[in-house]
Amino acid sequence: MRRTVLKFGGSSVSNIEKIKDIAIYLKNRVEEGEQLVVVVSAMGKTTDELLKQVNSITKTPNEQDLAVLLTTGEQQTISYLSIILNDIGVRSKPLTGYQAGIETVGHHLKSKISKINSKLFDQLFNTYNVLIVAGFQGFNTDNEITTLGRGGSDTTAVALAAAQQCPCEIYTDVDGVYSTDPRIYPQAKRHQVVSYEEMMEMSALGSGVLVSRSIEIAKNYNIPIYLGKTLSEEKGTWIMSTIEMIEKKAVTGVAIDKDMIHVTLNYPENNTQLLDQLFMYLEKEEINVDMISQITSNEGLQLSFTMKDTEEYQIQKIFGQLKEYYPALYFKIENRFTKVSVIGSGMRDMTGVASKVFRTLIEANLPFYQVTTSEISISYVVDLENGEKAVQLLCERFDL
Amino acid sequence: MRRTVLKFGGSSVSNIEKIKDIAIYLKNRVEEGEQLVVVVSAMGKTTDELLKQVNSITKTPNEQDLAVLLTTGEQQTISYLSIILNDIGVRSKPLTGYQAGIETVGHHLKSKISKINSKLFDQLFNTYNVLIVAGFQGFNTDNEITTLGRGGSDTTAVALAAAQQCPCEIYTDVDGVYSTDPRIYPQAKRHQVVSYEEMMEMSALGSGVLVSRSIEIAKNYNIPIYLGKTLSEEKGTWIMSTIEMIEKKAVTGVAIDKDMIHVTLNYPENNTQLLDQLFMYLEKEEINVDMISQITSNEGLQLSFTMKDTEEYQIQKIFGQLKEYYPALYFKIENRFTKVSVIGSGMRDMTGVASKVFRTLIEANLPFYQVTTSEISISYVVDLENGEKAVQLLCERFDL
Repeated sequence: MRRTVLKFGGSSVSNIEKIKDIAIYLKNRVEEGEQLVVVVSAMGKTTDELLKQVNSITKTPNEQDLAVLLTTGEQQTISYLSIILNDIGVRSKPLTGYQAGIETVGHHLKSKISKINSKLFDQLFNTYNVLIVAGFQGFNTDNEITTLGRGGSDTTAVALAAAQQCPCEIYTDVDGVYSTDPRIYPQAKRHQVVSYEEMMEMSALGSGVLVSRSIEIAKNYNIPIYLGKTLSEEKGTWIMSTIEMIEKKAVTGVAIDKDMIHVTLNYPENNTQLLDQLFMYLEKEEINVDMISQITSNEGLQLSFTMKDTEEYQIQKIFGQLKEYYPALYFKIENRFTKVSVIGSGMRDMTGVASKVFRTLIEANLPFYQVTTSEISISYVVDLENGEKAVQLLCERFDL
Repeated sequence: MRRTVLKFGGSSVSNIEKIKDIAIYLKNRVEEGEQLVVVVSAMGKTTDELLKQVNSITKTPNEQDLAVLLTTGEQQTISYLSIILNDIGVRSKPLTGYQAGIETVGHHLKSKISKINSKLFDQLFNTYNVLIVAGFQGFNTDNEITTLGRGGSDTTAVALAAAQQCPCEIYTDVDGVYSTDPRIYPQAKRHQVVSYEEMMEMSALGSGVLVSRSIEIAKNYNIPIYLGKTLSEEKGTWIMSTIEMIEKKAVTGVAIDKDMIHVTLNYPENNTQLLDQLFMYLEKEEINVDMISQITSNEGLQLSFTMKDTEEYQIQKIFGQLKEYYPALYFKIENRFTKVSVIGSGMRDMTGVASKVFRTLIEANLPFYQVTTSEISISYVVDLENGEKAVQLLCERFDL
């Protein structure tokens, strides 16, 4: 029997009416003979409301406690969806992260999936046609409830598909992967298919459709992912291995990341222990930094990097701790920059692409402050107010 | 180290401010050297709101699904309380029913606790001072989430105390056990101590402070229960074994149960199979009936009983099913009656008490329709509008 994992995000399940529409869609697919694993997020703004309540208590909630709280959001969605499905005659069962056997390791709020019991699903499909799994959550070896952090429900879905060796369909309010954000460049084209690698760059660089860890899992297990708009007739985008892709374009997309902060650190002497300790703290807090650049001169040490603005609180805390050991430490956190990246899995001639980007930005008089490259992308830090303009010019330039 | 189980009901934790007050109280007790297991209910009207949402979907939700939904209420309370405790420096850990090892059997929504892993608590107290357990919930051997039904959080607390052989303190908005409801008879007296048996009668007969199953557990494991008002200086009531009670009064209380329905069933012939099937259905739906009276005559079968009005939907369903087999079956469900009970563990001279009650009701011209007796109580069905008057007169008569 054909099995598929489907994932519906928060805006697709923001109220009971929307959940009912999804239930009817699932019923049709079951009647066509499919076994469905459905992963859902918390309804609409539920998680935000829980966090707001917590914020009224403390700015530094215990992370184990917070995980127990936040997972109730998804638990409510699985219950409602299952109540509706059973009510319209589809044999359905809701499963929390623990019940679905989603074992995790690491931070309570940023856990990584370490193990999934796929036999459990085979057994349950003897009785049920739809198994509804709460996204974003799991449990660790201490039997504690954990959450998977940003994009966690997508990760749940892809990991479940990987464990069962079946395709994964992810439904949101976006109808596929575009060469760039259509709100910035309306002529942007929707891709029918992109490679895992391209998608990873786009995600890591902030285009935001799917977090890189999900794509990494899909790539490792060679699971095709479909990205489409919830209950839409429009064809979305398949993400798959490059081997299965017929044509590889040099440049397939331009991504922009506005949700970043730029961090600069100065210290009067070249102290490698300070750097050691900084990176140890970053690792402990599981903060991903990007575009690191370091200069050591007679005037001492200068280091700068970019990171997600959602983790500003943690980096402030880290600098607070460091200043106890290194009182002369100076640091600056700025959000006046944005990162623009040009991506393409066929991007062999990096310098050719780089020089085209340079010329585009220079001709338009848009200054850039830092450049970093990966296998299939080049990223530029530009002024926040120039970001969208840069995206538009680059899309025109590369005919996206 | 002294260990105590404390339970706080829904109105005691209806908002974050109230939960903060409880946290400070718990901190004080921890500082006095206690290990605390704290059981909490869902905040205020949370459960009602979830049920309202479900009602907008269907009147017959799948019970497994509904259990998964309802348990999120308590899970949120344990998280908030633990966040606050950890924030004020008390090492605390929230535990869902599953995490607390509360194994259950039976109906998803009316499960009974079958096993508790008390070693788990001993282990966790090596690290934590307060363990916060979500009331009203557990899990069954199929790893499914279950709820314990009416008064479930109290049962959680008492069962945890039984498993750990420690006292149990139950805090609500009522400051103890009264001879009758003070809203009906303002001169009602608060007991310092009552026996398990008396308390069981009062609960079973609807005085509503604590459900009988909780008291039954406490009695079986000989665990003293304290009933008091949340964060009040007033002394509440201890419920304990009669052996430890010095004085036993003949009549200790008058209870009234307004939340009942009166069910009458007629069938033109004396069909015992019909009765068999009825009681099989009642057992299956786990409906407790009370004050059963049956008459068989030439005109056929007549049976009447009382039950909780919250289960009216289920009894309607049962009669619907029975009518398929017995089309001539006639049934009537009425809520125009109330039950008034006189309770006392020292009530040896049942006829003496009964005749006093008869006279009281007759003198006041309050008709009664049915009388049943137990070891330590006598119950009367009277008209709904006469219930409170009957309580007042009986309290005066027995000097309560």
